[in-house]
Amino acid sequence: MKFRRSERLIDMTTYLLDHPRQLVPLTFFAERYDSAKSSISEDLGIVKETFEQRGIGTLQTVPGAAGGVKFFVKVSEEEAKPFVQEICDLIADPDRLLPGEYLYLTDILGNPSIVQKAGRIIASAYSDTKIDVVMTVATKGIPLAYAVASQLNSPVVIVRRDSKVTEGPTVSINYVSGSAKRIQTMVLSKRSLAQGSRVLIVDDFMKAGGTIMGMISLLEEFNAHVAGIAVLVEAEKIHERLVDEYLSLVQLTEVDVKQKKINVREGNYFTK
Amino acid sequence: MKFRRSERLIDMTTYLLDHPRQLVPLTFFAERYDSAKSSISEDLGIVKETFEQRGIGTLQTVPGAAGGVKFFVKVSEEEAKPFVQEICDLIADPDRLLPGEYLYLTDILGNPSIVQKAGRIIASAYSDTKIDVVMTVATKGIPLAYAVASQLNSPVVIVRRDSKVTEGPTVSINYVSGSAKRIQTMVLSKRSLAQGSRVLIVDDFMKAGGTIMGMISLLEEFNAHVAGIAVLVEAEKIHERLVDEYLSLVQLTEVDVKQKKINVREGNYFTK
Repeated sequence: MKFRRSERLIDMTTYLLDHPRQLVPLTFFAERYDSAKSSISEDLGIVKETFEQRGIGTLQTVPGAAGGVKFFVKVSEEEAKPFVQEICDLIADPDRLLPGEYLYLTDILGNPSIVQKAGRIIASAYSDTKIDVVMTVATKGIPLAYAVASQLNSPVVIVRRDSKVTEGPTVSINYVSGSAKRIQTMVLSKRSLAQGSRVLIVDDFMKAGGTIMGMISLLEEFNAHVAGIAVLVEAEKIHERLVDEYLSLVQLTEVDVKQKKINVREGNYFTK
Repeated sequence: MKFRRSERLIDMTTYLLDHPRQLVPLTFFAERYDSAKSSISEDLGIVKETFEQRGIGTLQTVPGAAGGVKFFVKVSEEEAKPFVQEICDLIADPDRLLPGEYLYLTDILGNPSIVQKAGRIIASAYSDTKIDVVMTVATKGIPLAYAVASQLNSPVVIVRRDSKVTEGPTVSINYVSGSAKRIQTMVLSKRSLAQGSRVLIVDDFMKAGGTIMGMISLLEEFNAHVAGIAVLVEAEKIHERLVDEYLSLVQLTEVDVKQKKINVREGNYFTK
């Protein structure tokens, strides 16, 4: 059965969005739509142009017999800026204040469409970086880590506070939490991370960075490398930040419990 | 700036896939592409036809002044069956056996593309059901719950084993875990679930169903209702199953540690 161009474009778009960073041979589409390679090439040109114009992403063409196309997510600044501002406004709501200057963010992190968009924006920053694995720590960072990883076509590994029987043998380390200066434990299933992996660390929130430092120490036990660090929210005004190379979408500049005021602004994402 | 039909179709497809179950007025697209409503209607007809033919989903047209279109994910059986078979084959690998007849599934649950596809298949079964919230329990069910929720356009709430300071006030219950018959605790942030919500419970694994029964009791404390229960894997041969109305993609029929054999087959998804 032959497909019209319009049908091919719709199905191709769906397929490519669903297979980021995967090489799709032209012959795959040619067979799927029973169409000539030259028509497929033209289709892909239109898709590429539209993706770039609309701030969705880009297609990379790999020439040669083993060639094809790869979709990379690339959210434009024009798309990303208003979204980050929206999160800032959401976070600035004083009803979020909890005892101990903590903030209630569960509703924001519980909204899949916010998390997915944040994930796409973060993944856009790593489109040229080789990432084998996205790592996060249970529990709150998990959805964002998956949102990022699904765009980078890489698996997620989840560090836990305690070992579970369903994880098999584990490696554990102790670390000092940055703000509270308490000794804590982190555990990772031995099977879940290959030696030498290039790892993108993703988390929802970073204060002094102790948890992220813990994950970095854990990576050393696996001879794995940090390929990047990205967080949704960072708290500023930390005198002793343990981590300095990272991306953040949002920055908390002040939390004043007495005045019931939360000051929030764009993170370093757009300036890095 | 005018858009050609081909560009409109590509952008429309991207937009609709990204906004499932949301009413998009025709005027939104008409303005976005500076095109006549009649052209937009034609475009949407082509998108709908292709989505249905390719087993992606469907568009529902809401007529009238406040009308528009809504995208619903609807993975065809033709698409879903081989995928479920693939997961069955993955799970049947005897290297997954852990002490105590547990199975190592961390790699499968850590693969965002598997999790997303499973989420789309589960969400397809609830396309005609009103769902306000997807609920799961930390930690392993979280990615699947987000994958389902993102297709149902609903938030996720995560039940925990212990309360955390960043969750605000919580409601907790005790429940008896089905297989081990131990008393356990479950905690949910008070703010995270509105009274009367219709809740879809999603988890990665169900043995006797104790954990899911716990979630159901927790829902009662919030005067919320169970709108459905869906799991990736169910273990069969449980004499006393506590829950009987549920969907499963995969069923474990036998785990034999001595013979190093795992028997797996399709769950009840295609027969329910």
